[in-house]
Amino acid sequence: MPTVTDIPDSHRDLLDAKFATMATIAPDGRPQLTEVWFLAEDRKVKVSLSTTRQKVRNLRRNPAVSVLLLDLENPLRYVELRGDAIVEPDDDFAFADRVSAKYGADLRTFGPPEDKRVVVTIEPVAINTWS
Amino acid sequence: MPTVTDIPDSHRDLLDAKFATMATIAPDGRPQLTEVWFLAEDRKVKVSLSTTRQKVRNLRRNPAVSVLLLDLENPLRYVELRGDAIVEPDDDFAFADRVSAKYGADLRTFGPPEDKRVVVTIEPVAINTWS
Repeated sequence: MPTVTDIPDSHRDLLDAKFATMATIAPDGRPQLTEVWFLAEDRKVKVSLSTTRQKVRNLRRNPAVSVLLLDLENPLRYVELRGDAIVEPDDDFAFADRVSAKYGADLRTFGPPEDKRVVVTIEPVAINTWS
Repeated sequence: MPTVTDIPDSHRDLLDAKFATMATIAPDGRPQLTEVWFLAEDRKVKVSLSTTRQKVRNLRRNPAVSVLLLDLENPLRYVELRGDAIVEPDDDFAFADRVSAKYGADLRTFGPPEDKRVVVTIEPVAINTWS
């Protein structure tokens, strides 16, 4: 299975980007697109999401996922990671806190106190680059 | 069926953007993401594609499509149009020429002489905005 270290040097900097476009499969079978924060960690792309989000429900039903990391200054340069998502609980916000550190934010304050978070790990089957 | 005129004023400027992120469904059922040029025309979002492209094959098999128009200066502001794609021939490059005019390019020179183009028109069933 490819990992983020298989992203060619020419595009490796995009792992430090602030935003990723995440595509999941909506209940009607159509792609759903949203922008997300992410971390490149343990040679994988990981996203912290509230369990109230539609895309978490999508991924629990169908793990098919694609993530695009875009060079905002040159939008024809990007890398796409396509594969399956593993959704795991992050009840103690341990991963969310690491995301918070990257963004200078506090994900613990983003939802109501009863908010639960998951870690979504993208396991790519294919990595495609464009430039 | 919603049209681009249903995009709220707060996000209507994104129709003048240069790039859109297009999601189709790959043969394995996973989303495929690429950046594309587009025109907002006749209250619809339209894309000119070479018939050699995988995403054209995807759309001919499964018209499910989503397009995201992103504010590159503020990537948490964007609009998503989700729906079905209509794929129609553009053998005389009439539409491709209008795209060329927007981008100061000449799509007629992008492929080999035998290259054929189609117009992909996104018929949205839902329009979602984020800011």
